[in-house]
Amino acid sequence: MNDTLAELTQILTQRRDADPEGSYVASLHARGLNKILEKVGEEATETILAAKDAEQSGDNSDVICETADLWFHTLVMLSHLGEDAEAVLSELRGRFHISGLAEKASRSKT
Amino acid sequence: MNDTLAELTQILTQRRDADPEGSYVASLHARGLNKILEKVGEEATETILAAKDAEQSGDNSDVICETADLWFHTLVMLSHLGEDAEAVLSELRGRFHISGLAEKASRSKT
Amino acid sequence: MNDTLAELTQILTQRRDADPEGSYVASLHARGLNKILEKVGEEATETILAAKDAEQSGDNSDVICETADLWFHTLVMLSHLGEDAEAVLSELRGRFHISGLAEKASRSKT
Amino acid sequence: MNDTLAELTQILTQRRDADPEGSYVASLHARGLNKILEKVGEEATETILAAKDAEQSGDNSDVICETADLWFHTLVMLSHLGEDAEAVLSELRGRFHISGLAEKASRSKT
Repeated sequence: MNDTLAELTQILTQRRDADPEGSYVASLHARGLNKILEKVGEEATETILAAKDAEQSGDNSDVICETADLWFHTLVMLSHLGEDAEAVLSELRGRFHISGLAEKASRSKT
Repeated sequence: MNDTLAELTQILTQRRDADPEGSYVASLHARGLNKILEKVGEEATETILAAKDAEQSGDNSDVICETADLWFHTLVMLSHLGEDAEAVLSELRGRFHISGLAEKASRSKT
Repeated sequence: MNDTLAELTQILTQRRDADPEGSYVASLHARGLNKILEKVGEEATETILAAKDAEQSGDNSDVICETADLWFHTLVMLSHLGEDAEAVLSELRGRFHISGLAEKASRSKT
Repeated sequence: MNDTLAELTQILTQRRDADPEGSYVASLHARGLNKILEKVGEEATETILAAKDAEQSGDNSDVICETADLWFHTLVMLSHLGEDAEAVLSELRGRFHISGLAEKASRSKT
């Protein structure tokens, strides 16, 4: 699971200043915060609908894709505001008393 | 940044079957998917409002907290459906051609 | 203000069974409830963003348009489920002890 | 159907300046636009969930109540911004070429 969000953060930073013609991320930044937030709202609704359908069908593939869309657009939002995933993960570590020591321990074992 | 979501996933799995009286996560599961999705919708709205306010004020602390709330409640939703953060991160890796090799490389250096 | 929602209900009923090629309403029904609910979610987000912008700018024109979009798509949703605006207005009358007598009184004066 | 929104508009105007201790509407205004918009977002999500459940169960009572909640909170939002239902209905009349003449005709018959 590790480093996916760190690598994605790097990609989002590079694409932020790319040509809006050739990059979806750059085009979102060019269209501004409201457009990015519209996408966050859209993907939240689609996640909710996919979760309801998953409850009926037992097939979780759509709800996983929609959650990925939702997280992705919140990462673009954070990038637009000068923040990144690490700020959110740091907040979550603080709330759940996650030290990050477990990670270091497991690494030293490898 | 690493392992925060992995540790959080473990915590969410443990709390899923805890006493709803003593655990917010357990109480959400006990109240069912609709209650969890109401929270996802609420936190999406609060994230959007906090982002608009951050754009005005230049202070990102609220939007980081609200995004943490939003991610957290999507993780509870995934847990309720028998999924976890890794499924979403795997989806994101596939979309962005993130190999996870960088992670392995950095670990072998430690 | 009167009768706008009644006339709109008639229009929505007629268009429900129209050719989806030629009618936006018919195309929404043909695409199904999830598509209609995605639009409800989208327009709710756009209403919220427009209200925040109106608070800054003092210009309410966008928030009025977005609220019209939101109400319109909830009316399509109700139509899809076999309901209409009158069911919602009846619910609101019950909550606020609105009798409809004021209306009859004002009409008898005309 | 007529006049419900007109009467509700009057009620909302009266309650806007009431004691927040004794009036839910006054308490929303006192808490400010963000709180009102959080409620709009919440009720939009609950409307969407109720519509999905109605599709399964065939029982529309919850989706009607949630739509009433959603419309009500958009009316409080409009009131907070100095607007009312008539502005939205006027917008809808313009889009759908609803003249209001049908209403006048029906009144002259009474």
